[in-house]
Amino acid sequence: MDLDSEFYRDLARPGTSKIVLLVMDGLGGLPMEPGGPTALEAADTPHLDALAQEGICGLHEPVGPGVTPGSGPAHLALFGYDPVRHDVGRGALSALGVGFALGPQDVAARGNFCTVDEDLTVVDRRAGRISTEACAALCALLRERVQLPNVTCFIEPVRDHRFLLVLRGNGLSGEVEDTDPQVVGEKVLEPKAASSAGKRTARLVAEFVRQAREALADRKPANMVLLRGFARRPNWPTLEEQYGLRGAVISGYPMYRGVGSLLGMEVLETGADPEEEVAVLERHWGDHDLFFLHVKATDAAGEDGDWERKVAEIAAVDALVPRIRALAPDVLVVTGDHSTPAALRAHSWHPVPVVLWSRHSRADDVARFGERACVHGALGPRFRAVDLMPLMLANALRLAKYGA
Amino acid sequence: MDLDSEFYRDLARPGTSKIVLLVMDGLGGLPMEPGGPTALEAADTPHLDALAQEGICGLHEPVGPGVTPGSGPAHLALFGYDPVRHDVGRGALSALGVGFALGPQDVAARGNFCTVDEDLTVVDRRAGRISTEACAALCALLRERVQLPNVTCFIEPVRDHRFLLVLRGNGLSGEVEDTDPQVVGEKVLEPKAASSAGKRTARLVAEFVRQAREALADRKPANMVLLRGFARRPNWPTLEEQYGLRGAVISGYPMYRGVGSLLGMEVLETGADPEEEVAVLERHWGDHDLFFLHVKATDAAGEDGDWERKVAEIAAVDALVPRIRALAPDVLVVTGDHSTPAALRAHSWHPVPVVLWSRHSRADDVARFGERACVHGALGPRFRAVDLMPLMLANALRLAKYGA
Repeated sequence: MDLDSEFYRDLARPGTSKIVLLVMDGLGGLPMEPGGPTALEAADTPHLDALAQEGICGLHEPVGPGVTPGSGPAHLALFGYDPVRHDVGRGALSALGVGFALGPQDVAARGNFCTVDEDLTVVDRRAGRISTEACAALCALLRERVQLPNVTCFIEPVRDHRFLLVLRGNGLSGEVEDTDPQVVGEKVLEPKAASSAGKRTARLVAEFVRQAREALADRKPANMVLLRGFARRPNWPTLEEQYGLRGAVISGYPMYRGVGSLLGMEVLETGADPEEEVAVLERHWGDHDLFFLHVKATDAAGEDGDWERKVAEIAAVDALVPRIRALAPDVLVVTGDHSTPAALRAHSWHPVPVVLWSRHSRADDVARFGERACVHGALGPRFRAVDLMPLMLANALRLAKYGA
Repeated sequence: MDLDSEFYRDLARPGTSKIVLLVMDGLGGLPMEPGGPTALEAADTPHLDALAQEGICGLHEPVGPGVTPGSGPAHLALFGYDPVRHDVGRGALSALGVGFALGPQDVAARGNFCTVDEDLTVVDRRAGRISTEACAALCALLRERVQLPNVTCFIEPVRDHRFLLVLRGNGLSGEVEDTDPQVVGEKVLEPKAASSAGKRTARLVAEFVRQAREALADRKPANMVLLRGFARRPNWPTLEEQYGLRGAVISGYPMYRGVGSLLGMEVLETGADPEEEVAVLERHWGDHDLFFLHVKATDAAGEDGDWERKVAEIAAVDALVPRIRALAPDVLVVTGDHSTPAALRAHSWHPVPVVLWSRHSRADDVARFGERACVHGALGPRFRAVDLMPLMLANALRLAKYGA
């Protein structure tokens, strides 16, 4: 009896209510030692605790039991798109994230400038994290020097050592495997076709890589490129088509703007500072139905293994909650896309705390927004992330009755 | 890995145990002000609390997360019939509810007598809620005056302004759209075919409406009819075929008798007063395996926005619980089909409290039958309503072991 997106599409009805989905990236965590608190539990969060007391809490599993999700699938689930059935290549997300108008025939890939030795063994996957300016100069160099037959190459700097590659031409395919071995000490991989449809594109990519290597030969540390996530733009219903929601994404990072843009949200201009993001929310409050507010710093602290910084970043977001509530949203949800425990320095499979507040949300006995406390909430200790969007819509009075 | 009805059909085994399913319609609720109690939490329910203490509790979602169900789907779920895969037209339910022997080729629809002005704009969808007697007289008039070619029309009074229309003939289809615009100020709709299969039936319905309008022209306020929910009788396995249960429905209302009858339950004669319903239960205790006891007053109070009346209706049912327990059922479940918060004056999506008691049910830490308390129960805070029937059967020792 799993209800699919078409079921909810038929029930969705228009409204004037407003929904805020505040995602603290990588919010869920672990104690640093047995019996200790998680970063969320340790953080001073009086406003999130008040929200927990007034609304309902729980923990969501982004993809499924035990599954550690990447950012793409984790966010798709939060918007009600089954992340297993909606598979988006990272390249396509990156393109949308930097505002590149990806055409339906284009193939996009994420690129890194990296350092290799003479036999193409990867020494540093990020070329010492060269600056964005250096990256832009190298992109300009590649644009000048690389030529592929019957295909236009777009090479755009993203941030630090990262760039975007888009191939435009007829009959291209995303069915090409990564050239990035993901670990140092291994050789750059040949771009292989993942299926017969990808053969021609794989040959073109191999030619791109060969010419790029020549162009970068004397540019150490950035003397090679790594490519991954070859993909075309998926063609899914937008949030407006699916739920009648005019959405907006407020995020300082390309990846999350990309997710929002892919689902038809308007990308609002902002930096990555949560205070600036809330100011953008305030300025655009009249313009949209759903605001997806994304905070990156919590995840970055977790990835760096910096539990104390994660505590501080969570507390900083908490301090902004009154400004969000002052806008009087009809539904306010605070959660993460996945867990990023500082103890693991990586994304993890652990369920992610959620608080859902609306005038009609009921309340439960949870009075503190944290991993242990949320286990006792009305949403349950391991609910499917894709169930969150229908609950937000219901609380916004945007779902019609099913059956007579 | 959702288990379907065929899986359970194969496990079901006969027995002499007895199950009572007491449904307080629209049981779940909301506080009237933040932090306040729901009607169930406020009601004096010592006997339901004792049941909660001895048995296991939880909250069910009738159809799915965020979905506000109509009465039909919500009840089908309680009997283990997936409400999305088992779609029953309201017309068919109404026919069964008034005891009309709906044939497999018949098409049924719900009718309202209504008031329209000269250009067929609906002024009152219920014609001032005319009495059942006036309704019966108008049905007799229509029976006399309306003639359709090669089709027999049955026109039966239901209650107040509501009547049942059944068309009997060859090649009829339920694929006809409502003529009821659902709101006043709009015109009566033409009966359109919902698919090509419904074209001939739609033409017959149009002719019925034309003749009915002529017959009622001088009968203001009841000067027109509205029709909705065209449907044939679905052909599903009965409770006896599915689970080996000889069921009985005890309800004063057509809709719920209709659901019971559709699933092969015997309809026991009763009024709508819960005390009378329990007396019927007592009289027929020896005759059936499963008793579906339906109380309407809780839902009606919720729909009227009357929180205090809902509190009183719940307390009145609680007072009858000892009489039910005195019959020594093997399994006793008390729940609602959906939530009807007085604060919303309508059905809602909120999970519905459940208590399941049997000698073998285990117990949990819930000692009070209410929305917040049930969150902590062994059945979970948001379990699927279709899972309830297998749990009732298991507690009645009516499911065989699966596998060796």
